[in-house]
Amino acid sequence: MPRVSEDHLAARRRQILDGARRCFAEYGYEQATVRRLEQTIGLSRGAIFHHYRDKDTLFFALAREDAARMADVAAREGLIQVMRDMLAAPDQFDWLATRLEIARKLRNDPVFHQGWTERSAELASATSERLRRQKQAGRLRDDVAPDVLQCYLDLVLDGLVARLAAGEDPQRLSAVLDLVEDSVRQRERASDA
Amino acid sequence: MPRVSEDHLAARRRQILDGARRCFAEYGYEQATVRRLEQTIGLSRGAIFHHYRDKDTLFFALAREDAARMADVAAREGLIQVMRDMLAAPDQFDWLATRLEIARKLRNDPVFHQGWTERSAELASATSERLRRQKQAGRLRDDVAPDVLQCYLDLVLDGLVARLAAGEDPQRLSAVLDLVEDSVRQRERASDA
Repeated sequence: MPRVSEDHLAARRRQILDGARRCFAEYGYEQATVRRLEQTIGLSRGAIFHHYRDKDTLFFALAREDAARMADVAAREGLIQVMRDMLAAPDQFDWLATRLEIARKLRNDPVFHQGWTERSAELASATSERLRRQKQAGRLRDDVAPDVLQCYLDLVLDGLVARLAAGEDPQRLSAVLDLVEDSVRQRERASDA
Repeated sequence: MPRVSEDHLAARRRQILDGARRCFAEYGYEQATVRRLEQTIGLSRGAIFHHYRDKDTLFFALAREDAARMADVAAREGLIQVMRDMLAAPDQFDWLATRLEIARKLRNDPVFHQGWTERSAELASATSERLRRQKQAGRLRDDVAPDVLQCYLDLVLDGLVARLAAGEDPQRLSAVLDLVEDSVRQRERASDA
């Protein structure tokens, strides 16, 4: 394919993804109808679904972009830093709320669950790899199984998104993250007693 | 009002609340349309909205029932026990998912936010009262402000609901709650070192 077509294709896909992200953020997963996607993206459904098969495929493409970005931070600085970054970007809160809105679908729609899990795999493996290294370095508490710690951090991530989406004060949530960070660390508290 | 009418009224309201709870659980908050509420409850919209002004009022009535029951447990045994009870009742998971689906509405609709906060006030005050007593008894860590601990527990509650709704293993979530319980407690870890 000539260079100009590749560039055109990439730009078109970018336009679709950016518009879809705004649409999901504004209306939520369920209410982001095909008609609304057309309006926010500025293309016909034919043009949109030529690039992404359906609404779920589009949503998964956005989820994969998120997961890749978060995995990058998680690998270097851990999942708690990913959460601190969320607190620092309030313009993302509406989009983040879609993570909660799909919970029911994740539970009741096996195909959707499979698609979501595949797209989130990169983040999950970055987190577990980082936990493994932290443990080796003696920075992780060793009286709790690593899979429980990972489940704990995933739960905190979902809880953080829920509290943010509901309007909780980011300042207070930041103090909560300090507590969470402390609770997964190896520590000696003799001097605190 | 004669006794028989009062009984009839109570029974009718019970029928409406039970049906509405099933409807919200099955379809989610947004998709629980008036038509679906009619079908699940088995009454016309006229009869339903004679007792509860609109869909939000109905939803808040259910939220208040939940909050009262949870406040009762929270006052005696703490919010973590409330969460353990959730894990033990998988038939409630679908209903619990509605807590997440309203996050966007909580943030963007001030009237709804106000109504929800009023209905949840009983649980919030039971939790904070219990935290106060635990602190007095020296069972709560004192290096973190009580409002941060309360925010932490609220976040964990939302996170738990999200993970349950998404299909996470309740067994593993139970181990996570042990970790959470440990993380709010006063402790001496000298002997662990």
